[in-house]
Amino acid sequence: MTSPQLTLYSNASPAGYPLCHFVDEAKTLSLIDKEQKSDWYLKINPNGRLPTLIDHSKGNFAIWESSAILLYIAQHFDTEHKISYDPVSEPKLYSEQLQWIFFAHGGIAPTNHFMRMAPETLPYAVARFKNELIRLISVLEERLKDREWLVGSRYSLADIKTLVRLIEAVQLEPNDYPNVQKWIERIEARPQTHKGLGIPERLDVEKYIKKPLEETRAMGAALFNFKNVE
Amino acid sequence: MTSPQLTLYSNASPAGYPLCHFVDEAKTLSLIDKEQKSDWYLKINPNGRLPTLIDHSKGNFAIWESSAILLYIAQHFDTEHKISYDPVSEPKLYSEQLQWIFFAHGGIAPTNHFMRMAPETLPYAVARFKNELIRLISVLEERLKDREWLVGSRYSLADIKTLVRLIEAVQLEPNDYPNVQKWIERIEARPQTHKGLGIPERLDVEKYIKKPLEETRAMGAALFNFKNVE
Repeated sequence: MTSPQLTLYSNASPAGYPLCHFVDEAKTLSLIDKEQKSDWYLKINPNGRLPTLIDHSKGNFAIWESSAILLYIAQHFDTEHKISYDPVSEPKLYSEQLQWIFFAHGGIAPTNHFMRMAPETLPYAVARFKNELIRLISVLEERLKDREWLVGSRYSLADIKTLVRLIEAVQLEPNDYPNVQKWIERIEARPQTHKGLGIPERLDVEKYIKKPLEETRAMGAALFNFKNVE
Repeated sequence: MTSPQLTLYSNASPAGYPLCHFVDEAKTLSLIDKEQKSDWYLKINPNGRLPTLIDHSKGNFAIWESSAILLYIAQHFDTEHKISYDPVSEPKLYSEQLQWIFFAHGGIAPTNHFMRMAPETLPYAVARFKNELIRLISVLEERLKDREWLVGSRYSLADIKTLVRLIEAVQLEPNDYPNVQKWIERIEARPQTHKGLGIPERLDVEKYIKKPLEETRAMGAALFNFKNVE
């Protein structure tokens, strides 16, 4: 299913991981150097964020937003529906797949910024995001109590997207969710997962979470550079 | 395009507005009474949030996540593609529509909580979300500089979704974005918009933003009830 007609611009953070299953060429941009805000990149992705996929076979058509990229790849390259559901022949499963993609896309994993990158510790902000994360993981735990995959009877974009959003989150939380844990192990056991997680170089989570707070805060300051707004 | 075969569970907040274009029956649940966490509702929406659409014509199939509901309605009821793009005959426009839906779904409008509902003012948290909101509106301003609609040459789900996410946001920000402002006026001028915005009863934004902080904070406490998490 890989294609030399696709180029992915990404970096070593989880949003780009699952897309790497499908491409032979992935190019890394540096957030620290603000390469994602350069003129040439803003022409292909007006939002100035990573990742972006270029489909050379369609006149260098650019697709951005990682979830939109997943759906594009599924529509055009997973025509046998090995990892996705077909909107025409399986409309309910297709809709369920979308529901879980949006659940993950909008909900999971905003804890990291306030825990590790903000210049000061804000207990209320940390608690707000951690409580919401715990709630969302509990929703997954319940969903997975009698099923192997989030939607239907096979691995799909819903699992891919949700796992990616959990990668940052679960490291931060002791894992009291056996159904979620077993589901992660099922995904990790797929050989394609590890190919995907390797291009471009995967963020070393173990190393990252051991970094001292002053180091991750410095990274936050370099990346975000927030001014106060009255 | 309305159908008596669809029931929408929603409330007076923006996520449900655009869905009301398409249904004749909308039922309001009370967040304060936590109706969205009741057993019967969790059976149709495991995430316990509003809105949820029930398609009675498909064995009472339940669809949740407002963006997934929009795409479901488009697939099954907008077969002439009056407000959406067709994945098969217009694959690039369909993908662009998804890109902007995800842009809005994941990005816009998380300012409200920290500005008005959190129990204390956290300047850094407020600034983080306001800066990001300003950045996102600037992306829209640039996008709309030479086009009427976010995608292609007609009003679509991308405009619907993005406007809904801006409704809460723009009220909080003096509007220095003429292209965005004209685009909002174009949407507001559509008669269907006002039908949609009326069922169930629309949140009175003018009244809401004039509420004293202690009142919105009390609402936040009732709705969210956060415990600190160490």
